[in-house]
Parts: sequence; structure tokens; C-alpha cells
Amino acid sequence: MKLATLKDGTRDGQLAVVARDLGTAHLALGICPTLQKALDDWDFFQPQLQDLYETLNHGKGARHAFAFDPAQCMAPLPRAYQWADGSAYVNHVELVRRARGADLPKSFWTDPLMYQGGSDDLLGARDDIVCANEDWGLDFEAEIAVVTGDVPMGLKPEAARAQIRLLMLVNDVSLRRLIPPELAKGFGFFQSKPATAFSPVAVTPDELGSAWRDARVHLPLFVHWNGRLVGRPQAGEDMVFDFGRLIAHAAKTRNLRAGSIVGSGTVSNQDDKLGYACIAEQRAREMIAGRVDAQGEPSTPFMKYGDTVRIEMFDSGAVGKGQSIFGAIEQTVAALK
Amino acid sequence: MKLATLKDGTRDGQLAVVARDLGTAHLALGICPTLQKALDDWDFFQPQLQDLYETLNHGKGARHAFAFDPAQCMAPLPRAYQWADGSAYVNHVELVRRARGADLPKSFWTDPLMYQGGSDDLLGARDDIVCANEDWGLDFEAEIAVVTGDVPMGLKPEAARAQIRLLMLVNDVSLRRLIPPELAKGFGFFQSKPATAFSPVAVTPDELGSAWRDARVHLPLFVHWNGRLVGRPQAGEDMVFDFGRLIAHAAKTRNLRAGSIVGSGTVSNQDDKLGYACIAEQRAREMIAGRVDAQGEPSTPFMKYGDTVRIEMFDSGAVGKGQSIFGAIEQTVAALK
Repeated sequence: MKLATLKDGTRDGQLAVVARDLGTAHLALGICPTLQKALDDWDFFQPQLQDLYETLNHGKGARHAFAFDPAQCMAPLPRAYQWADGSAYVNHVELVRRARGADLPKSFWTDPLMYQGGSDDLLGARDDIVCANEDWGLDFEAEIAVVTGDVPMGLKPEAARAQIRLLMLVNDVSLRRLIPPELAKGFGFFQSKPATAFSPVAVTPDELGSAWRDARVHLPLFVHWNGRLVGRPQAGEDMVFDFGRLIAHAAKTRNLRAGSIVGSGTVSNQDDKLGYACIAEQRAREMIAGRVDAQGEPSTPFMKYGDTVRIEMFDSGAVGKGQSIFGAIEQTVAALK
Repeated sequence: MKLATLKDGTRDGQLAVVARDLGTAHLALGICPTLQKALDDWDFFQPQLQDLYETLNHGKGARHAFAFDPAQCMAPLPRAYQWADGSAYVNHVELVRRARGADLPKSFWTDPLMYQGGSDDLLGARDDIVCANEDWGLDFEAEIAVVTGDVPMGLKPEAARAQIRLLMLVNDVSLRRLIPPELAKGFGFFQSKPATAFSPVAVTPDELGSAWRDARVHLPLFVHWNGRLVGRPQAGEDMVFDFGRLIAHAAKTRNLRAGSIVGSGTVSNQDDKLGYACIAEQRAREMIAGRVDAQGEPSTPFMKYGDTVRIEMFDSGAVGKGQSIFGAIEQTVAALK
């Protein structure tokens, strides 16, 4: 099942069921007004939404169906009660640390890194990335995230897998030049992580077929920057901690409530021929290889006003072929007015 | 105006207006079902809630009023879209750092520390502090927090003050022995900050009268641990960053949506005769003074199962005298079942 939240002028938007081919959509109004409400009582609403989804896929009930437009999408959860982002692709962490001469603690391979993100203002897939200062080192981070049901404190990783309700793509926008001074303060990210964007639709795990196994998504994630394909990492490779593990990490000392979003961190492979899903990683590789200018700056710059980023995944595993699973995140960087 | 959220078996509870003397309450059902909804459209709902509040204070409309019971309270926002906790009492940060031999960077006096807290599962004032392991160094942190309206990105501190809708007391529970390894990972707090608890009622700033000025609360905060008064710091003293400044810090790179909770950090005074609002601070003073045992452990232990903490503020400025403004946070530590 594929679900979207459509802009209607309200804070939470309107829940819609979207056909598998992303061609048409149907408001879920008669079933449940918002995605959060559906997640609050998933066992009750899920079968009704699924029925509508199947009707829509079979071209029935077309009288009330309409063309699906990703530009009309808010984030599937426009405001969420939790956005917890892991860093499961340890390769990414290792590269970024190595570039600044820091070793990777051995524990990073066994104990997940995770930060608490802001969740009150999440962006739709086509919303601009608004930034007050072009010099803050604006970067994209292409990720995958799950949305959970209720997770009781202390739940084990295997059991946590069963609480995965939906999957989404993520652009975890980062302000790279604000990160070092902010992390040096010791309390983690805040200003260096502006609003995060999500794919047009959230999908149930069964939509991924055999690509969903071991609580990982075994497909490449395609990242275009200003129209150029810069990354196609395999999301199923090098993901050291699966989503069950990440959820259990988040729930070690507290309950997670339904609608919690748990992210994978930037998808990153050891094989550098597959490119990059965030600019920082490319810059790290350049620094490690000594490809820097007289000021020690790597040759690849960060994003500028007007730059675009596109993040998408296809069921064929090839870019532009087969079915786009989540629709594309496609954002432009804009100045704060 | 004083507002509470009463337990009714739902995730968000029922909004109630509570009389100034905390004696009676009245459901706001006919006006607005939940506090989040009221905050979403404050200009519309606030006058109606205020009318009910005045009626209740004058003993009118008593037919539908009932005795107010803090044990029936959820957190005023049982799940919030944001919980951003500052560390405005820099004295606290300095003490804790000095105890472990670390200097305080000068920038800490001019640039607020803030961490993103989990907001999906907030505790009512009388809910147990549930912890899976008594050895994790369980500590209370008595704080003050504000609830904001919508705050646009980049709003200046003075203008941000006008977006303060409500004030609450906070117990920002911390697991002290999990903090050093977690912060060493560089991504801030996560497992070391379990669910946070809030006072029975949230109040509009006018309820504080002249004690609310310069976006600070000029009253002492009383903290009892196992029935013994251990702290009575002046919340208006040594608060280096006022709430306007903290909100502006949080909104530097993103919008804050209505219902965002912004905390002051542990209330802490330079005058150590006023005691402590978290155990870590007392232990830091003991370490600095060399009052440690053979293992280098300070004499004051952390909380154990069965321990209680009480956090309260009175309009008289004296403990137990005058009117309790927010009602008391009064929690017991319990083992995870």
C-alpha cells in the first residue's frame, strides 16, 4: 500500500491512498483523515486503506480518483512526534572522520550512532530547501526511514521489526559548516540540521517484495544533483545495523509512540564507484586522496541557491526503469525571504 | 489561565481548564478537545478558554466543575512535535564540567547550549519514572519550559518572546552513567534522556504577574528528594539566556511549529546555599571539594527504585506558602516490568 498526505491548507494535510504506479490517488477521507490517526489505530484502519488501495490499483472506484501530483504532497507525516536518525552505514561515518584525521572508535561497528532530529516541521518532496545563508555548507543526505507503531521500552531488535509500518525516502538536509562548532559543544545537532524532507509516498514493506529482507531495503538509491547522477549506492549493502536494531536502540530507555520515524543515516557503500548520497562524503574522499586546493578545500563545493537534488528508488534496481517506488524527492535550494 | 490534559484513555487526553487555586477543573470539551488543537489556533481558542477560566475562578458554572486531581493529569502535551531543551543556567554546565576537569569554553556564555529531546512520550506529573536498570545513574533535573506558537525561521529574540503561549515545570530525567559514553559518540543525548515529565498544569505568562519579566521566571523552584528539601534555586537568577533567546536559537535554521516546548535547562544558582535541582550538580560540588570515597565517588548517590522527587513553585516565593502555580511534579522511580 502507498500513502500520501496532500496539501489542503491545514497543518496535517489529507491522507490519500496512491496507486502502485503513482498515477492516481484517492482521498482516504471516508476512512481516516490523517496518516498519524491511521498509525494511532493501524490494525483498525490498515485493512480499510488496503481495500481502497486494491480498488484503486484495479482501476475501479475511478469516479473519485484523481491524477496523483507529487508537488501537492506534504511529508507523509507533515509533523511527527519523533524523528530519530541513525547512522547505520558506518562507512559514511568512517570516511567523514578519516578526512578530518579522526579514527573510528571500534564500538561504532557494534553500537549504533543516532541523533534526535526536529520533527515539528517536515518538508514535502517538492518543497524548497530554504536557507538563510548560502555559506553554511548546505548538503543533501539521501536516506531511508521507517515509520513505527508503538514500541515498548526495551523491545528486542527481532521483535522491533514487526513494528515497522511504513518506509519512506529521506533528504536529511545538513548545514555542514555549522556541524563542527555545534558538535564541539557536546549536545549534538540542532541548528546544523534544518527541516528534513520525505518522499511523496510512504509504502508498506510488502511493496518492496523480495527487496525487503533482514529489515533492510536491497535496492540502489539514486541521487541526482543538478540533473547529474552522483550516487547509486546499494541500500542493502554495508548497512551495519538493520532497522530492527535501530528501533531497539531508540527504545532502550523509553517507549516510542506510533508514528515515530527512524532513519538509516546516509546510504553509503565502501565501493566508491557507486558515487555518493551526500556531498560531505565526496569531499571526504577528495581530502583523503589529497585532491584539495591551496586553501585545503576539496574540489566539490556544497549546494548553492538554485541547486536541485533528486532522490529516488526503482523496483527494477535501474535508474528510470520499472516503477518508482516512493516517487522522487526533488528539491531546490532557495534563500530565506 | 491554567490548562491541564486529563487522562481519558486516549493518546492525547482531554483538555481542561483549571481554577487558579487548582481546586476545581472544567472540561474544555465544548471549546477544544486537546491542548495541541488550542495551540494550533490559539487566537481563536484562547479567548473562549479564558472565559471559561474566569467563570471557574468565580465559582460560577460549578455544575459541571469537578475537583482537580493532579494524579489524573497527563503531561499538558502528552506527545508534542518538539521538545528542545536549552542549558540557560551556565553555572550548572560549568560545575559539571569542572568536576571532570574540563574548562568551560568562553562561547558558552554567549551561544546557548541546546539539545533536541524526545517528545513522543511525555509523562504526567504523577507518572512513575520507569527505568530498566537502577545502575544507570538516574537523576532528576528541575526546569522551566515554555510552549510556543508558530515561530518563523530567523525570528529575533525580542520578537520570539511574543510567541510564548504557556509555561510549565519540567523534570528532565537523565541517566547520568549513560551520558559520558553517549556524548563521546558525538551525536548528543538519546538513550541517556528517557521520557520527560511535566507539571500538572501549563499556565499563561500573566499568571506569574510581576514574577514574569525579561522572559524569565523570577521565583524560586523547590525540589524535594525523598521528602527532603534539597534545592530552592532562584529561577530568575543566573539564567544567562532568556526564553526569547532560547527560542531564537532553536529557530535559527528552521521554523518552529505551534506547540514546540523549549526548556531552560536545570535551574542552577552560583550561590550553593540554595542547594541543587539535580543530583549531578551536588555530586560535582562534592568532587570539586574532594568529598569523595576511596573509589573517587561523591557521597551523594543517584536515585534508586522507590525514591521520590517533587518539583514545585509558589507565588509567595516560599515553600508551601501561597499558591502553587503549576501544581507539583511528584514522581516515584519504578523498575521496568
